[in-house]
Amino acid sequence: MLVLLKAGTPESVASDVMTRLRMAGLAVHRTDHDGQARIAAIGEPGAVKFDEVEKWPGVEATQKLSRPFKLASRAFHPQDTIIQVGRCSIGSEQLALMAGPCSVEGEAQAFTIAEAVAKAGATVLRGGAFKPRTSPYAFQGLGEEGLKILRRAADAFGLAVVSEVMDSQQVGLLARYSDILQIGARNMQNYALLREVGHTDKPVMIKRGLSSTIEEWLLSAEHVMAQGNRQVMLCERGIRTFETYTRNTLDLNAVPVVKELSHLPIIVDPSHGVGIRNKIAPMARAAVAAGADGLIIEVHNDPDHALSDGAQSLYPTQFDELVAQIRTIAEVVGRRL
Amino acid sequence: MLVLLKAGTPESVASDVMTRLRMAGLAVHRTDHDGQARIAAIGEPGAVKFDEVEKWPGVEATQKLSRPFKLASRAFHPQDTIIQVGRCSIGSEQLALMAGPCSVEGEAQAFTIAEAVAKAGATVLRGGAFKPRTSPYAFQGLGEEGLKILRRAADAFGLAVVSEVMDSQQVGLLARYSDILQIGARNMQNYALLREVGHTDKPVMIKRGLSSTIEEWLLSAEHVMAQGNRQVMLCERGIRTFETYTRNTLDLNAVPVVKELSHLPIIVDPSHGVGIRNKIAPMARAAVAAGADGLIIEVHNDPDHALSDGAQSLYPTQFDELVAQIRTIAEVVGRRL
Amino acid sequence: MLVLLKAGTPESVASDVMTRLRMAGLAVHRTDHDGQARIAAIGEPGAVKFDEVEKWPGVEATQKLSRPFKLASRAFHPQDTIIQVGRCSIGSEQLALMAGPCSVEGEAQAFTIAEAVAKAGATVLRGGAFKPRTSPYAFQGLGEEGLKILRRAADAFGLAVVSEVMDSQQVGLLARYSDILQIGARNMQNYALLREVGHTDKPVMIKRGLSSTIEEWLLSAEHVMAQGNRQVMLCERGIRTFETYTRNTLDLNAVPVVKELSHLPIIVDPSHGVGIRNKIAPMARAAVAAGADGLIIEVHNDPDHALSDGAQSLYPTQFDELVAQIRTIAEVVGRRL
Amino acid sequence: MLVLLKAGTPESVASDVMTRLRMAGLAVHRTDHDGQARIAAIGEPGAVKFDEVEKWPGVEATQKLSRPFKLASRAFHPQDTIIQVGRCSIGSEQLALMAGPCSVEGEAQAFTIAEAVAKAGATVLRGGAFKPRTSPYAFQGLGEEGLKILRRAADAFGLAVVSEVMDSQQVGLLARYSDILQIGARNMQNYALLREVGHTDKPVMIKRGLSSTIEEWLLSAEHVMAQGNRQVMLCERGIRTFETYTRNTLDLNAVPVVKELSHLPIIVDPSHGVGIRNKIAPMARAAVAAGADGLIIEVHNDPDHALSDGAQSLYPTQFDELVAQIRTIAEVVGRRL
Repeated sequence: MLVLLKAGTPESVASDVMTRLRMAGLAVHRTDHDGQARIAAIGEPGAVKFDEVEKWPGVEATQKLSRPFKLASRAFHPQDTIIQVGRCSIGSEQLALMAGPCSVEGEAQAFTIAEAVAKAGATVLRGGAFKPRTSPYAFQGLGEEGLKILRRAADAFGLAVVSEVMDSQQVGLLARYSDILQIGARNMQNYALLREVGHTDKPVMIKRGLSSTIEEWLLSAEHVMAQGNRQVMLCERGIRTFETYTRNTLDLNAVPVVKELSHLPIIVDPSHGVGIRNKIAPMARAAVAAGADGLIIEVHNDPDHALSDGAQSLYPTQFDELVAQIRTIAEVVGRRL
Repeated sequence: MLVLLKAGTPESVASDVMTRLRMAGLAVHRTDHDGQARIAAIGEPGAVKFDEVEKWPGVEATQKLSRPFKLASRAFHPQDTIIQVGRCSIGSEQLALMAGPCSVEGEAQAFTIAEAVAKAGATVLRGGAFKPRTSPYAFQGLGEEGLKILRRAADAFGLAVVSEVMDSQQVGLLARYSDILQIGARNMQNYALLREVGHTDKPVMIKRGLSSTIEEWLLSAEHVMAQGNRQVMLCERGIRTFETYTRNTLDLNAVPVVKELSHLPIIVDPSHGVGIRNKIAPMARAAVAAGADGLIIEVHNDPDHALSDGAQSLYPTQFDELVAQIRTIAEVVGRRL
Repeated sequence: MLVLLKAGTPESVASDVMTRLRMAGLAVHRTDHDGQARIAAIGEPGAVKFDEVEKWPGVEATQKLSRPFKLASRAFHPQDTIIQVGRCSIGSEQLALMAGPCSVEGEAQAFTIAEAVAKAGATVLRGGAFKPRTSPYAFQGLGEEGLKILRRAADAFGLAVVSEVMDSQQVGLLARYSDILQIGARNMQNYALLREVGHTDKPVMIKRGLSSTIEEWLLSAEHVMAQGNRQVMLCERGIRTFETYTRNTLDLNAVPVVKELSHLPIIVDPSHGVGIRNKIAPMARAAVAAGADGLIIEVHNDPDHALSDGAQSLYPTQFDELVAQIRTIAEVVGRRL
Repeated sequence: MLVLLKAGTPESVASDVMTRLRMAGLAVHRTDHDGQARIAAIGEPGAVKFDEVEKWPGVEATQKLSRPFKLASRAFHPQDTIIQVGRCSIGSEQLALMAGPCSVEGEAQAFTIAEAVAKAGATVLRGGAFKPRTSPYAFQGLGEEGLKILRRAADAFGLAVVSEVMDSQQVGLLARYSDILQIGARNMQNYALLREVGHTDKPVMIKRGLSSTIEEWLLSAEHVMAQGNRQVMLCERGIRTFETYTRNTLDLNAVPVVKELSHLPIIVDPSHGVGIRNKIAPMARAAVAAGADGLIIEVHNDPDHALSDGAQSLYPTQFDELVAQIRTIAEVVGRRL
């Protein structure tokens, strides 16, 4: 149930409404919009009656929150969520540009790439320290050592850090080094992990599972938000279809759909989405034209010798050119870098 | 086998090479590129030996055409194919803008929409006269009467016509009224139909089947081209995935992939691709940013009362706005309207 | 609308009801069940009112036919449809066993295989004379010559014939030689072809399109039945999924689903469904256990030299063993060979 | 690399071979088959040379383990793996029959159902105590309390227990109560969890991810086995396709495919696979006919009031009937209950 309070309702009255809803056994979440408090009360249907609540002091109206995701919905929170990370306001008119290597491989590599992407205009450095690999025998990442390198490389060039957390036991460790906690596609429905990052105060980026519907994806965001952490962004990174020419099928349709259903920012990852170097720039341009709030792109100074995903990493100069093209397209859709 | 002749080879010698290949039982197709004849000889592997052909007069080199599609491949025909239809050079730097109603419903409707889309900048009028409908009880189109209306409405506003042909027995009829013969997604592997349009001299637009791989799609183009008709363009219109929020999943990844594999123009149909009115403009912008050669968009003056596909048709004013946005994005990727 | 007449309604009264429905502009189809006439009246909703029809003489009740497929639904026709083809009652407790080569390649091949499968217990000989091939350069079948061979081979061993018709212009030709007209998966939504076979009096077998939902498949059956031909059977032959280990994903779930939604027989084609020889017998057994009305299986005397689909054809002795296993499983589900 | 030792090689020699391989930096795993030791040495390719190893004392031959999964492959371990759990030898000729409620809801429910399924012939009691739910607001299970009930109900009727572990931090807890640790479909690629169960000595059952290829699934088994725990079984529970009539598409093709590629037992879960009560028995019969090593089926004494998955739970009497049918089909494929 969504409870809208009258504009100008005193805090004491608002507080009383929330207490009464909580006493009915409901989870209560509040947001403010246009000078009006909006209270989501979630739980057993029928715990309180709509028409009774409407008679409470301060209450202007009630509505059903009909989507299965509540806190992630535009109905609860009409305005765009903006998440401040370093120099970047993710979800604002400023496009978020995240770039970096697939895996952190060493200091020289990380610093070289960080410098290049910072110069080109990126504000967030990406890089994996713990890598989820289909095979147990593939390179699993440098672990905490990698996180330290990533943090120092980012700091050296004024960048924020985004890196993946793979397990509920790792959340504390990641939160020490990374500004954004990334949930990988394979873990999109690892609910223990989602709950754990929901207890932190760090922004979370949830990659879409390979075969997840948009509704399931938003429900994963809801798992985080239900714990109190509302700084959630989504990341489209390609879905699994019958087509085998591309690694995955980057689903840009998800961009306008998510923007309508939810107030959360949506980032697009064309690197994993198509998985072929010379197709990444066209899809990155397309993502911005479709209205994405940002891009996350793999860039490597020496892709042929990368320890993972070399074939889908851009050369720094390719990234430069791409950023220039994006600058113009961004203006068409009311954005800027 | 691809046989490259030396630059400046006399026609009599080129002709002799082609005759010898034909006498070996191979189908022979020729294109000229950079002053050099390129001859595709297709048939039984081993019918002629690569090293023997290389000794023939005029022959510079031979290559294997390794892809299953031969005439549709860039290996055979390196430069972009440009198809002239009315005022539009499809495949050139000029973006092809095709627009119109899903179905032709009557004279007033067709003329009103034709005028609106022509003013906005479209050069081709789309409209169905024979409609493939999942249910035998749904509106099946006006038939030949619809074609006549479509032709006259297009002529009145200087537009070319694209309309669907559903059966091999209908090809002659469609060819009388339509400038481009559209093969619908459901018929993408109707080989009798593909052969029949391959025998005409009309440009053909092949929509991608709902679950067709890019390779199968190019092989459908090959079915047409093998009959002698090389004026083939492709149209991406969404594939079937598990996602149910959108009608289909418009696969923009196909744009850069097709541009690399083939010289044929690729048009994008965001109307069928997403099937939700307010998602069409973002995906149309994205298609252009990804490098599409054109767009085909459903526009209706009164979508709420359309006999088919109303929910995915743009209002004429929405189409106007979209064209304005596309104009700027086109420049970023070296195109114009 | 479904109109149920009272038991014992005189024919003149029943006929009058049908005439009145037709005069309202509706298409009228009748079936008899448990001594009661059931009339489907299909067309513009509201053409006649449910409560008015219920007052007509002879009418016991009316119901809405809520599924998009009407004649194919169990609501219209509660009992199983049984189609008599040669010695086989398809849809009865007798399992239909169809077997033979992918393509007819010559007289010796066809006769050898026909003899083998007839001995093993098959009642219908399968074999392609016109082959839909993804590539225009692959073997396209022997054409009419192949049909003649197939017919003679079948007659020699007391078998019926099933063969594919690929185009509306070919229907007459196929009908001369084949007892069952097969619509291939690629043509499942070739509506001109469906209409044309709907005008014949030959049983039709509709293969499920690679990415067709069960509802679309039943609507393709409806396209045939709406023309008057009610002898339609369905054939599950694998759908397209992300899994690449098998050629397709044979969807046996479709068997119990179709048996509930429709009265039409459903045949399973494990040969195309999995496409790997040693996986065919397990899936054929599973199909029978799931309740299929029959099987269609590729058998070849010399699979290694087959002109098409050799890798998925059984050796005659493998087919023998399979039939023996199926005999026992059939009994568990109330069937027999 | 697979190293085959000569039959009769003394343990000291075998041990020396393994040490030398380990000293080359390889992970070493051994199995014995037909009196011969088979040693898998996994790691950096080229760490040791094939022809050199062949000269070592005791070595008969070396082979490349070409599949990405090594320990899970038939090449390493030719004979079927048999896992003893309670009275059931999973993977042997005895079919494993696992049944029980979706969630443990209370003592009365658990004991009633345990009694019913034990009587019918089941040997393993299934039941969720921690439930992965798409929505954070749905019933999450009774937790440890549920595990205690499950254990007592199983013990009361001589059954073993299978229950899901959702997080790496929960493994110890689950291992105290459950005989088989189930990895759910959403966690199939939760590698931290796979590693953790790999360190236990409990049998593990890995459900196939909704859109996982068979290869990825076997690689998840490999993640467990690489830690030393070889008691792994697989569970097919339906994949995600475009078809929406069934909840998922149970992929029985996976059964013969897995039996060929791997020595691990494969169980089929028709309850989640189709998700519609009256389609479960047909698919369960089909699974056995296709060669599955067992079934896991949801049974509930009062499905209409189940807290989760009621619509796909069998009534105990339906389960009885199903077991009777399966008994006969099992014999056809050389199995017994």
